[in-house]
Amino acid sequence: MNVRVCKCRFKIKIVMVGAMATMLLVSVLSFFAAPSDSIYIVEPGPKFPPTRGEVWPKPQQEKKSDYFYLFRPDVIQIEIVNKKCNLLNETIERYAEIWQRQYMIVKRYNNISTHVESHDSEKYLGVLKRLTINMSAPCEYYPHFDMDESYNLTVGANSQMTSLSVWGMMRAFESWTHLLYFTDDSKEIRINKTEIHDFPQYKHRGLLLDTGRHYLSLNTIQKTLDAMSINKMNVLHWHIVDDQSFPYKSEILPSLSEKGAFHPSMVYTKKDIKMIINYARDRAIRVIPEIDVPGHTRSWGAAYPMLLTKCYEKNKVIAYGPLNPIRSTTYKILGELIQEVQDLFPDRYYHVGGDEVDLSCWQSNPELKEYMKQHNLTANGVHAMFMKEVIGRVKKTTVPIVWQEVYDEKVPISKDTLIQVWKYKWVDEMIKILNSGHKVVFSSSWYLDYLNFNWNSFYGDDPRLMVYQKKKNARLENIVGGEACMWGEMADDTNVISRTWPRTSAVAERLWSGLDYKHPPKDPVTTHVRQRIEEHTCRMLRRGIAAEPPNGPGFCVNI
Amino acid sequence: MNVRVCKCRFKIKIVMVGAMATMLLVSVLSFFAAPSDSIYIVEPGPKFPPTRGEVWPKPQQEKKSDYFYLFRPDVIQIEIVNKKCNLLNETIERYAEIWQRQYMIVKRYNNISTHVESHDSEKYLGVLKRLTINMSAPCEYYPHFDMDESYNLTVGANSQMTSLSVWGMMRAFESWTHLLYFTDDSKEIRINKTEIHDFPQYKHRGLLLDTGRHYLSLNTIQKTLDAMSINKMNVLHWHIVDDQSFPYKSEILPSLSEKGAFHPSMVYTKKDIKMIINYARDRAIRVIPEIDVPGHTRSWGAAYPMLLTKCYEKNKVIAYGPLNPIRSTTYKILGELIQEVQDLFPDRYYHVGGDEVDLSCWQSNPELKEYMKQHNLTANGVHAMFMKEVIGRVKKTTVPIVWQEVYDEKVPISKDTLIQVWKYKWVDEMIKILNSGHKVVFSSSWYLDYLNFNWNSFYGDDPRLMVYQKKKNARLENIVGGEACMWGEMADDTNVISRTWPRTSAVAERLWSGLDYKHPPKDPVTTHVRQRIEEHTCRMLRRGIAAEPPNGPGFCVNI
Repeated sequence: MNVRVCKCRFKIKIVMVGAMATMLLVSVLSFFAAPSDSIYIVEPGPKFPPTRGEVWPKPQQEKKSDYFYLFRPDVIQIEIVNKKCNLLNETIERYAEIWQRQYMIVKRYNNISTHVESHDSEKYLGVLKRLTINMSAPCEYYPHFDMDESYNLTVGANSQMTSLSVWGMMRAFESWTHLLYFTDDSKEIRINKTEIHDFPQYKHRGLLLDTGRHYLSLNTIQKTLDAMSINKMNVLHWHIVDDQSFPYKSEILPSLSEKGAFHPSMVYTKKDIKMIINYARDRAIRVIPEIDVPGHTRSWGAAYPMLLTKCYEKNKVIAYGPLNPIRSTTYKILGELIQEVQDLFPDRYYHVGGDEVDLSCWQSNPELKEYMKQHNLTANGVHAMFMKEVIGRVKKTTVPIVWQEVYDEKVPISKDTLIQVWKYKWVDEMIKILNSGHKVVFSSSWYLDYLNFNWNSFYGDDPRLMVYQKKKNARLENIVGGEACMWGEMADDTNVISRTWPRTSAVAERLWSGLDYKHPPKDPVTTHVRQRIEEHTCRMLRRGIAAEPPNGPGFCVNI
Repeated sequence: MNVRVCKCRFKIKIVMVGAMATMLLVSVLSFFAAPSDSIYIVEPGPKFPPTRGEVWPKPQQEKKSDYFYLFRPDVIQIEIVNKKCNLLNETIERYAEIWQRQYMIVKRYNNISTHVESHDSEKYLGVLKRLTINMSAPCEYYPHFDMDESYNLTVGANSQMTSLSVWGMMRAFESWTHLLYFTDDSKEIRINKTEIHDFPQYKHRGLLLDTGRHYLSLNTIQKTLDAMSINKMNVLHWHIVDDQSFPYKSEILPSLSEKGAFHPSMVYTKKDIKMIINYARDRAIRVIPEIDVPGHTRSWGAAYPMLLTKCYEKNKVIAYGPLNPIRSTTYKILGELIQEVQDLFPDRYYHVGGDEVDLSCWQSNPELKEYMKQHNLTANGVHAMFMKEVIGRVKKTTVPIVWQEVYDEKVPISKDTLIQVWKYKWVDEMIKILNSGHKVVFSSSWYLDYLNFNWNSFYGDDPRLMVYQKKKNARLENIVGGEACMWGEMADDTNVISRTWPRTSAVAERLWSGLDYKHPPKDPVTTHVRQRIEEHTCRMLRRGIAAEPPNGPGFCVNI
């Protein structure tokens, strides 16, 4: 940080969030001026010079030599020796193109076709000639929760990638691409002799995108998927609609987006969504939709006001609140919508929402008050009833994902339901969930809309480690993963990519590589990690992702 | 803000800035969970719907009617009735092109060439046919501190713009462009009958860009200048080099950038700089260079280590510190460099830097210790001596700008020198400076690298108002302006535009429009201002500036 910043402020801010919210946001920022005689040691050049050819996220096992090959995409022969399929071919073509684009940088720096500098080095092993692809099971069509992403990779005399699945193959190709690095003069691409045995620690490694608060273009979503695949993430949690807008263009209920979208041009059609799902599939990424209910549904009311609960204050309607939980129309329309959405999204998992329900609105409504009295229900009980109804309307084979409130309010849910933990006191919450035999997806400390939190504050938060430190015998394997959440209030096409990356790369490495929770590092953010994320940021830039600087002063070349 | 964010965190962070810095950054963020029965009233649609045709920054006097004309760039005739010059012609052409691009949006929405909807309105006054340009003094070639930016503008039966200068004309064209707005169906551009009499409250309305911590592309600098002109800002303070890199490509001292730039491609040549200066001139923006000395010069040492002071700890050299103030080589090289830079930048003002000097390094150096003893000088005294020498080396006609330390250390400076106030306790500092008859440029609370501060925290900070509230009879006119500062540690081409805009628009409006310091508004950030900055953000997007959302959920069309 610039020292200037730190000298010039002392502010206390108290901000009221929401018209009637009682929430206080107290942000006390105090800066003590440095005595004028302190030494500011600043070295010239980048704060953390990037590494070369380091894979991100860190592989489970990796043996690297400083002997190296030259990598030339026009020379290397790729041979498939076992199972084949279109998806594998397309993957190979996609990476060949990525390599080709990198090679064009090399060509820019070379006027002659042969270059011999590397030949002089005693570590030089020649030009890499051959790469064998050994996939041992037939391709699957869509990625899924239990897909096998493990792979082995050898760079050497007999370079090869082996994996059971095409998903693992995609991860192998990505790692291979990370191993490539440019020489100082940018005239060659090298790859070191390497052995990798790799697999993810967590099955569910997600990013939430919110298209309800600002519309995001298809191009931005595709860029996000590109970046996710560079970071070996495998779940796009698409929080598609919210209070502010309803961009999902339903074919059976078209007025929802006709009246609820920000603008007729700001919708996602069936065709758009299929394109996104396939684009994600090609990168081993699942797309899980969330149609959040019964809260966060204000935009539904533009087309169907009768779906919403009227909130009262002193016998007067003051606002529209959550979906009306006691009208059959609500469930009918919701059921139809869920069915349509589930027909479109192939994933077995479906996010039913269930967070931040304005119970006070339900409590204020005379009709609902009467209902609660008759049925001897609290407002929480009504929420539970509602969520039970919703979960009953998803496909029989579907596994629901819910925000933690649904669990907290004791809605009957199956053991395989994923409970997304996002609130404060997350460790206690996770322990409670694990104790009851349920499964956790962690998000609490990975909120990207909170700009004060840099990648390094995300990096150490391994949810299994956090639980283990408080309770040694918890069923840690039931923490199946986590998600970074990019809430969209202040993010649109102009800034969502640079806010998300490389900060989410920290989450990606945590979920893929894990931390040794029995022997955790004192500070996981080492100088080496800082240098690695510098390289990784430059790599994303080279691949067309506008990832912002992670650590401070520096630069990227060959982009 | 998303309520989620506010529920999930309680963190105290203590960060040490700099290896030996004693500075503490304590950031206490506390969030109290909302009781689950509070009402979250959220209306569908944008949080603050944009205004239509509101000029930003707010003109001094404005009379608007709801009678309107249609604006068609292919119909309107522009006639110059008084002084003429190339720069005026180029300005007209530039805005004609901007209007033409907006009109292409309208054409996209129209399949027929005539459209009559507006004709039905009783407020409709016809298609605007003629605009008269009345400039009463000959053109100047470069913008300058005392340039006249005032203008009058009439939209009506006899539409005209009048100004003394071409700079005022540029401001008038910009305001005219802001008055244009699209109809709901995007099929027409309208402009309301309007009278504007306008001038800036502050002469110096600047933005600091830092190209020493990250290299910024020429394209990014041009985009920044575009955005500045949209916001009627008139000074680009180019903090061109710093500790980390030396991208200024000197012709007389080429090794400075050859060895001190991040990369051979990351330099600004004479040609690049001239292009930027002319691009800025065409927008009534001055470009003032800063070659910061004697601190923030570590990158000079890559080529000339002997220019830097060796810092000692227990008789051992531990680092390189500020420029060496007692070697004649320092002043010789610095003098040559300043001369070259001043030959390149036409502005009469030149920023000599002078901030954050590591005096403890000077105090640790045996040679300097001896010097101070012999000359009976403190380290502060040496800094004062150094700055006096530097100021003696700028052109005779030059007016220096200095960081506040130079004033604080009692360097003899002329009354017209601008003192840039950036530290904490800025009101007391400004009063002190005004008392001694000196001039102020204010920056303390306008640091853009501090992400917690949104545009609305910048918006109320009128430096004259702040001083007036503490001292009624201060010479407020000697506060000549201010600068938003975009320090580059964490900003590069990927995020610098969206971080700078629209946050800097708040500073731009404050400096152009001012606040009535005798009757200041209780809260200057009204709903109307929020709506105006929404329109203004969409306007910038339409003009190719990736300005981020200012207020929360919303959207822009016609971009």
